[in-house]
Amino acid sequence: MDKITLVTGGAKSGKSLFAENHLRAYGLPLVYIATSQAFDPEMEDRIAAHKVQRGDGWDTVEEPLDLCGALMRTDGAGARLVDCMTLWLSNVMHAERDWQAELEKVLDSLRTQSSPVVLVTNEVGGGIVPMSALARRYRDASGLMNQRIAAVAGHVVLVSCGLPLTLKGSAQAPASLA
Amino acid sequence: MDKITLVTGGAKSGKSLFAENHLRAYGLPLVYIATSQAFDPEMEDRIAAHKVQRGDGWDTVEEPLDLCGALMRTDGAGARLVDCMTLWLSNVMHAERDWQAELEKVLDSLRTQSSPVVLVTNEVGGGIVPMSALARRYRDASGLMNQRIAAVAGHVVLVSCGLPLTLKGSAQAPASLA
Amino acid sequence: MDKITLVTGGAKSGKSLFAENHLRAYGLPLVYIATSQAFDPEMEDRIAAHKVQRGDGWDTVEEPLDLCGALMRTDGAGARLVDCMTLWLSNVMHAERDWQAELEKVLDSLRTQSSPVVLVTNEVGGGIVPMSALARRYRDASGLMNQRIAAVAGHVVLVSCGLPLTLKGSAQAPASLA
Repeated sequence: MDKITLVTGGAKSGKSLFAENHLRAYGLPLVYIATSQAFDPEMEDRIAAHKVQRGDGWDTVEEPLDLCGALMRTDGAGARLVDCMTLWLSNVMHAERDWQAELEKVLDSLRTQSSPVVLVTNEVGGGIVPMSALARRYRDASGLMNQRIAAVAGHVVLVSCGLPLTLKGSAQAPASLA
Repeated sequence: MDKITLVTGGAKSGKSLFAENHLRAYGLPLVYIATSQAFDPEMEDRIAAHKVQRGDGWDTVEEPLDLCGALMRTDGAGARLVDCMTLWLSNVMHAERDWQAELEKVLDSLRTQSSPVVLVTNEVGGGIVPMSALARRYRDASGLMNQRIAAVAGHVVLVSCGLPLTLKGSAQAPASLA
Repeated sequence: MDKITLVTGGAKSGKSLFAENHLRAYGLPLVYIATSQAFDPEMEDRIAAHKVQRGDGWDTVEEPLDLCGALMRTDGAGARLVDCMTLWLSNVMHAERDWQAELEKVLDSLRTQSSPVVLVTNEVGGGIVPMSALARRYRDASGLMNQRIAAVAGHVVLVSCGLPLTLKGSAQAPASLA
């Protein structure tokens, strides 16, 4: 499972930039799998800022729900960045699908990928207990999802202040492992 | 103080599972000291899910408030898991007891234990400042409690995505230290 | 940039105490640059508690907004503790100043300091997405600020339960590096 990397951290901790640089080290064509949907101007701004940060040279696939399908379709096309898993989870829960069944499909596809995948997720369980039952349900689901993905990943990295702490696997960039 | 381990992390970060496996490595009878109280169906579900995760073979002691007494009574009975400290703190504050005095009693009992204790706690200070003064007071108390317990513990571990980062002591399992 | 240290962590994680001890290891006169303003009794209590924790022997400079000026004025006067950056950011945003321009000034001054500076900041992005747009804007700004300061710092430390995890630079105290 050395092909699968999970990058976690708080909001604006530098996760995506770390993940992008990690992905570039594979020396493969770059594929961006975006799970976000531009529902409102704030989200449009976020998406645009991420696009500027990434720069040119990326093939972009937009897939808010069927992540398993997107992984299958893009396997072999290059090194893929999935940004991000907590947003995907939010989309799946909002669509009232069974998130645990959908997650199993994603985990199954991750186990069989031949090209690298770097998945970005968020730490959402480090604050006080949310007042809303929906927020608590989402928080619990996010944490469980992160544990499950980490279990199939070869590398897991926690980012804070733009800097990585290695939770699993080697701290080295993928190219130096090749 | 090698007998005392503190396991911290966000909600659903895999703290309890890590703590359970850590405790099993002592090769002693397993004692579960539950600080939770089933006030509502959501909490009942949480308690039931934790029980399924632990599996059989545990002696369970329920003690929402007098944790010092529970530690004293169970010393010598096996390796003990206290799950969790932030819930205990919440119970103590809700009962309008002096949480700092109660914490001192717990710290005193930890310093004199002859059998191992693994304590699970939560990181609750990593979000934005809560709007409610009560929530801020609880958040501050949790952080101070975690610092105090960490000071008497021989091992302190931060868990994210089910994976441990060692904050203090050895990263090795207790059995390999025996 | 070995003179610049960033200490981050959640609320009441023991950041300030760690930062104070780190600063003492330089063996220089101690200067405390306070960014806080005592608007209400709760904040007064917090400031008083921090003052008791620090003990005597500190020169205190209060500067809620012009941090760049405070750093310039105190350079050469000793080892400086800035406590804390998220409060400074909050002051700047509340004063409706351009926080990114103000941050650039602070970064420029950090790059040219001849005496050590330890900056304390907060992890505020580890909870669920805040309901309020202002809170989201502040959370994003805090994360970006932390990344920028970390990039110019020689040491970056994440504190949890009063214990440090080294994100960048040496885990050793400054005195042992001298």
